[in-house]
Amino acid sequence: MKKIFVVGLGPGNLSQMTNRALEALEKSDVIAGYTVYIDLIKDRFKGTQMISTAMKKEADRCNLAVDEAVKGKTVSMVCSGDAGVYGMAGLMYEIVHARGLDEDVEIEVIPGITAACSGAAVLGAPLIHDFTVISLSDLLTPWELIEKRLECAAVGDFSICLYNPSSIKRYDYLQKACDILLKHREPENVAGYVQNIGREGETGIITDLKTLRDTKVDMFTTVFIGNSKTKNINGKMVTPRGYKEVEGSK
Amino acid sequence: MKKIFVVGLGPGNLSQMTNRALEALEKSDVIAGYTVYIDLIKDRFKGTQMISTAMKKEADRCNLAVDEAVKGKTVSMVCSGDAGVYGMAGLMYEIVHARGLDEDVEIEVIPGITAACSGAAVLGAPLIHDFTVISLSDLLTPWELIEKRLECAAVGDFSICLYNPSSIKRYDYLQKACDILLKHREPENVAGYVQNIGREGETGIITDLKTLRDTKVDMFTTVFIGNSKTKNINGKMVTPRGYKEVEGSK
Repeated sequence: MKKIFVVGLGPGNLSQMTNRALEALEKSDVIAGYTVYIDLIKDRFKGTQMISTAMKKEADRCNLAVDEAVKGKTVSMVCSGDAGVYGMAGLMYEIVHARGLDEDVEIEVIPGITAACSGAAVLGAPLIHDFTVISLSDLLTPWELIEKRLECAAVGDFSICLYNPSSIKRYDYLQKACDILLKHREPENVAGYVQNIGREGETGIITDLKTLRDTKVDMFTTVFIGNSKTKNINGKMVTPRGYKEVEGSK
Repeated sequence: MKKIFVVGLGPGNLSQMTNRALEALEKSDVIAGYTVYIDLIKDRFKGTQMISTAMKKEADRCNLAVDEAVKGKTVSMVCSGDAGVYGMAGLMYEIVHARGLDEDVEIEVIPGITAACSGAAVLGAPLIHDFTVISLSDLLTPWELIEKRLECAAVGDFSICLYNPSSIKRYDYLQKACDILLKHREPENVAGYVQNIGREGETGIITDLKTLRDTKVDMFTTVFIGNSKTKNINGKMVTPRGYKEVEGSK
C-alpha cells in the first residue's frame, strides 16, 4: 500500500508542530505543499525532495503528490494549521478516489493546531464554550450560504471564529459579516482579532462588534466574536462556562 | 510577575503534544491537573511537584495552582486536548481576576489539538469546511440553550462536532440531539464517531444520522455529523469544499 500523510504544521514557526507530524515528515521521501509552507520546513529536511505549487493550485498539488506516491514514494502534503480545517485532507481523499486509487494509496491525516485554537490562546479564552468556525471566502462557497451560517451562528449565541476575513477583492466582507451579526447581537459584544499567529509581529486586539465592523484586517488575520456572555477581563477575551464558584464570587 | 501556563496536551499519548507545550512543562516547578492527565505525564517529569484533583473540582484545581504561583513558583495547569476548548484557560482567567491578582500573575495559554481536530483526522475530513462545536453536557449550560444551538447548527448546514455526547445520567442526550437535527437534515446525512482518540482502542465509525440516533456512545466518544454535502468515500467521512477540478471529474 502506498502512503500519503496530510500533515498540519500548526501556526507559524515549527515549535507548535507535534512530534507525530515531525515523525511523518522524517519518514517521507517527498514533501509537497504551498510554497510558503515548504519554505518554513526546507532547511530542516534538506535531503528530502520538495514539491511546491502556488496558491489556488490545490488540485494540481494533490495530483503531483499522488503521482509520487504511485511511484512508491512516501509523501507528505503539508498544510498550515490543521490539515482537516480548510486544509488539504478532504481534497486528497477526493482526488485519490477520483483517480480510482482507493485500494492503492492509504491516506493518514495528522492533525495540527488550527488558527481558531492558536488565535484564541493569544486573545485569552474566547472559544472555551460552544463555537462556530466560518470562512468568509466565497471563492468556493456561495456568499448566500456564508450569510446564512453567520445568521445561524448569531442567533445560536455561539462564539464565532472567522477565517479569511478579508482580501483585496473582498475588502468589505468583514463589514458585511458584522452587519449580519449586529442584527442579533449587541454592538458591545466583545470581539477581537489576531494577526500573524505564531509568527513575528503576532498581535492580538480586543475590541467590540461595532468597532470590528469598521476595522480593516488583512488575509493573515483571524477574527473572533464572543457569545453574548463573553467578557473583557483585564485585556483578555474570556467566555465563561458557568462555574458557580467564580460567578458567585463576583 | 508570577507565571501560570495553561497547557493543552492534545489527545491521548504525548506524541501529539507540541514542543511549545513540552518546553512549558520543563520550565515549571509545579504541574497541576485532573488526576488522569497527571498520570499521563508524571513519568516524564519525575522531579516536578504534581497537584492533581478529581473531576468536577476545576475551581479548586485553579485555586491551588494560583496559590503556588503566588508563592513564586512557575506553574503549568494541564488539560487534555486544547486548553481553550472546554479547557481550563477561561476559568483560570476568571479566578485570577476574582482574586484580584491580574497585575501579579501572568497567564499564558498554550494551545493543543482538540478532539474536534484529532477525531476528524481519524474519520477523514468531516470538518474541512465551516463547522460548529457543541457540548451536550448540561452541567453548566441550560439544556434549552444546547437545543437552540443544535437547531441553529442544523439549519445553517454546518458540519457539527459534539463533545460530551453522553454519560450514565445523560444516557439519552445524543438521541435527543439527533432528533433535533433530523428535523432539518436527511436521515442519510453522513455521521460518525470516534472512541478513545489517540489512545489504545482508538476506533472510528462512519454511519448516518438516523443510525447514530439509536447508537449508544460513552463519554470518551466524540461525535461528528457532516453537512448535507458530506460524503462517505471508501469508508472515510469527507466534506467537500467545492473544488471544481474533482467535482467536474465525477
